[in-house]
Amino acid sequence: MDSQQKFLRVSEEAKDMFLPHLSTDSVVFGFDQSELKVLLIQMTYLKQWLLPGGYVKKDEDIDDAAKRVLKERAGVSDVYLEEFGVFGKNKRSEVYFKDFEDSLWHKQRFVTVGYYALYNPDNGKLIVDEFSDKCEWVYLSQLPEIELAMDHREIIEKALLTLRERLTYKPIGYNLLPEKFTLSELQKLYETILGTKLNRGNFYRRIKNLGILKKLDEQRRGGAHKSPDLYSFDEQVYKKALENGLSNW
Amino acid sequence: MDSQQKFLRVSEEAKDMFLPHLSTDSVVFGFDQSELKVLLIQMTYLKQWLLPGGYVKKDEDIDDAAKRVLKERAGVSDVYLEEFGVFGKNKRSEVYFKDFEDSLWHKQRFVTVGYYALYNPDNGKLIVDEFSDKCEWVYLSQLPEIELAMDHREIIEKALLTLRERLTYKPIGYNLLPEKFTLSELQKLYETILGTKLNRGNFYRRIKNLGILKKLDEQRRGGAHKSPDLYSFDEQVYKKALENGLSNW
Repeated sequence: MDSQQKFLRVSEEAKDMFLPHLSTDSVVFGFDQSELKVLLIQMTYLKQWLLPGGYVKKDEDIDDAAKRVLKERAGVSDVYLEEFGVFGKNKRSEVYFKDFEDSLWHKQRFVTVGYYALYNPDNGKLIVDEFSDKCEWVYLSQLPEIELAMDHREIIEKALLTLRERLTYKPIGYNLLPEKFTLSELQKLYETILGTKLNRGNFYRRIKNLGILKKLDEQRRGGAHKSPDLYSFDEQVYKKALENGLSNW
Repeated sequence: MDSQQKFLRVSEEAKDMFLPHLSTDSVVFGFDQSELKVLLIQMTYLKQWLLPGGYVKKDEDIDDAAKRVLKERAGVSDVYLEEFGVFGKNKRSEVYFKDFEDSLWHKQRFVTVGYYALYNPDNGKLIVDEFSDKCEWVYLSQLPEIELAMDHREIIEKALLTLRERLTYKPIGYNLLPEKFTLSELQKLYETILGTKLNRGNFYRRIKNLGILKKLDEQRRGGAHKSPDLYSFDEQVYKKALENGLSNW
């Protein structure tokens, strides 16, 4: 069945199953060799690349929809998705299905809710769904070379900015580290996400000032250098601080 | 016309004019006597309090819808609204119109997009629209005493948390200060939003470390004490830093 016929086949079914006008798109970031990459799908129709996105069932919480869609379209589950923005400009999505009649359910106006996640690419195998040719990790540095559909480039950029902003005050990315980590491992993670080298002294001072790290009574053994202290992340302290007003100001 | 008849009258018109299933709600924070307050509407129907919210026209950008709704329902314009969250649980809104037939347009499932703003209550006069009895500023400290509709209490709480988080890294709230301000005026603003007293030395050091303030070659004259230095906010520096990676880490 060619790619256009597939959409015609599911159009009526989609109308019964999903809320109109609402979609979700997920920006899943992964790490590899100190570089950030993002999970993308190449659709068979038009051959453009897209974020793994889809629709919201009529009785489904929107957060659950984002999770389900990511699993169905990319095989990624067990991931903490955080909503970061709504993309609701008129005409942002309608143009994508230009080869179809207006009666195609998918061709209506969609306001999409963006979610992002940090995911360890080693965690599981990706799948390719029936509408797609590929589902792959693409380095952020390679994005300028590929054709992204609709406003998906803008969605990725907003997700990256949000991630960088939240990194400065939120427990983000710790799931990519072992439970116990050294400050130098944490610095490497921050440098990769922020896309910049950090001054070691400033970083150590600021990350400690956040007050969300617990220094453990253990060191990392086995290296050539002095064994560095191990830390873990104290989520309770963070949550409490936020609720009570951020007293570390 | 009683309050129920009003909804019946506009139900058909709403169906033609607006996207189904999508609404916006705005949490507008104001300052008064060092306390935070929020702009609320008391609807005639049910007499519960709600955020100024409404629907999205079929060809309207969603950000524009939020602005229009706030103007139509509360008379507030010239305000910078920032999206902060999507509230999309199934059944969150359907229960509100329980006295009506399911055919009422307003009774369908709505996913709402939350916006917040900081607004100077002295800026303009509030209006009361045809569906409401009141439109007023309510102190956050008074919220436990009033009946808020649907999940609007949760929406306000999420807005406040977001505001507090963003305050730590973003140029927020500066529109509530004069263009030139002293660090002690800025500290007062932060204390009000964070709901906590701040250590003066720590605050000065951290706010300067953010690198988004410009020290002016002027002092505030006229007080009993030593004339304090004036500052202004440098938005360019902030934007550049964010795009290049937050090098102040």
